[in-house]
Amino acid sequence: MTVSAEPVVSFGDRLAGVFATQGQLCVGIDPHSWLLREWNLPDTAAGAESFGRAVVAAAAGRVGLVKPQVAFYERFGSAGFVALERVLADARHAGLLVIGDAKRGDLGTSALAYAEAWLSPGSPLEVDALTLAAYMGVGSLDSSLSLAAAHGKGVFLLAATSNPEAADIQKAIVAEGSHAGSSVARAILDEVGERNGCTSGTIGGAASAGVAPGLGSIGVVLGATLDLAVFGIDVHQTPTEFRTPVLAPGFGHQGGNIMDLISIYGGYADGVIVSESRSVLSAGPHRIEEAIERRVAEVGAVRG
Amino acid sequence: MTVSAEPVVSFGDRLAGVFATQGQLCVGIDPHSWLLREWNLPDTAAGAESFGRAVVAAAAGRVGLVKPQVAFYERFGSAGFVALERVLADARHAGLLVIGDAKRGDLGTSALAYAEAWLSPGSPLEVDALTLAAYMGVGSLDSSLSLAAAHGKGVFLLAATSNPEAADIQKAIVAEGSHAGSSVARAILDEVGERNGCTSGTIGGAASAGVAPGLGSIGVVLGATLDLAVFGIDVHQTPTEFRTPVLAPGFGHQGGNIMDLISIYGGYADGVIVSESRSVLSAGPHRIEEAIERRVAEVGAVRG
Repeated sequence: MTVSAEPVVSFGDRLAGVFATQGQLCVGIDPHSWLLREWNLPDTAAGAESFGRAVVAAAAGRVGLVKPQVAFYERFGSAGFVALERVLADARHAGLLVIGDAKRGDLGTSALAYAEAWLSPGSPLEVDALTLAAYMGVGSLDSSLSLAAAHGKGVFLLAATSNPEAADIQKAIVAEGSHAGSSVARAILDEVGERNGCTSGTIGGAASAGVAPGLGSIGVVLGATLDLAVFGIDVHQTPTEFRTPVLAPGFGHQGGNIMDLISIYGGYADGVIVSESRSVLSAGPHRIEEAIERRVAEVGAVRG
Repeated sequence: MTVSAEPVVSFGDRLAGVFATQGQLCVGIDPHSWLLREWNLPDTAAGAESFGRAVVAAAAGRVGLVKPQVAFYERFGSAGFVALERVLADARHAGLLVIGDAKRGDLGTSALAYAEAWLSPGSPLEVDALTLAAYMGVGSLDSSLSLAAAHGKGVFLLAATSNPEAADIQKAIVAEGSHAGSSVARAILDEVGERNGCTSGTIGGAASAGVAPGLGSIGVVLGATLDLAVFGIDVHQTPTEFRTPVLAPGFGHQGGNIMDLISIYGGYADGVIVSESRSVLSAGPHRIEEAIERRVAEVGAVRG
């Protein structure tokens, strides 16, 4: 990997810029079979391309972030990836920050190859940030994180997700090492916080006062319908950790209420990406702009 | 999802057939940059295609299984998937069982979309089995498992991997539910065993005598360089669980010794896929057939 000689603007700084000018709403791009039907599009790669480009066109100028769900393109094989590449190109040209929701995860050179695919400038699948799953440990992704940082890219690691089947793993208690006694979800949050230059654990007010503001470039996924306390995550504690951005699915259709943003995410609230898919996409091709504007206003009213 | 009216042969039965006639070696297809260089191929999608098709040609008739690492194709975007589709088509025509090493994992309709991409008959990316990561819980993948079963396909879930950074998560202790007290890796092994029709836990000899022989269609990944006892996995216990096939990376280059197959995998040994990549691929295009034959003989000598 070659580190560019030019200074790169970090993903965290770009995200903070988007938040300041365009708010915290992110529009998902999820071409489900049934949504394509509702939009009067064929359930093909061409249909998924038309859908994605229409969502990008509706999002541009209204929000700062979009999140394509890769699975719904991958189901069409290489033709689906051709479609996705065109959607990504449109989004880049529109100046949107793009989060590729791919949930990739592997080891060593394979993990690095995924990062090259999605986070290298000039790659056909280039996005601004990628979701990753760390079943093989956060450390298994360090080469991906380095590549991301070198190019001003971001990643979001799954930490606590909203589905009940996740409890076995995400609430399991780490048995050894520096995170012993933490839940797995909390350990991932702490490992990410450390990599964002935060200090983990309980911190006195004096020590934390000197930490630079701004957002880190390594985020986590924390579902909006969860009580994070059951994972041992206290969102009102340890203010220096709050540099970690949070990708928050679960508002809207899944039942999370944007009015509860502060009570759910506490000190993390300023760094939360409010990700909505179905609540916006099901408005259909003729009403999606209106649906996006309404949600932007609702999120903006809460964030003031 | 439409369930075919024709009876399908399960992946487990097809795997058992391959083991009986062609042994347990699986050749990885990993077009790293440096391997492409060593093979005098360009580091492009076309190079990765030539590499993959040459490996398939060398494997056909010598082994029964190949495992392409998707990350090394994905790094070229849609062009890489075109290349991979051609490699997969060659492998199917050669009658090889193909394990797509993609480590996908998601929830609900997104998880199902990944299964559709890789495990639906006629899909351009069709393989016989797919590796999955269950950070969101084994239950989050049940729709994928149902789709796989309906089409005679298999999956392999990451359970215990060889890298040291994995310990935090994979050795963490499940805190609640029916797997409370187990390590995460053990809980995944047990959940898979239950889905293969095995009974988990310690079982008396009389009760286990009536269990049908043969392999299940849901496998696990258990690295060959591990001491599985540290995950609370006793490979000499609970014989009815041994229907679960095991994808075993780590032999050859990574240091696992095929002579230790029984001591590592115990009662699972008959269902172990010995997966080797670098040890075979680094022989180069002119010596790969010879390298495969040598490894087949070495594995066969151990397995009798």
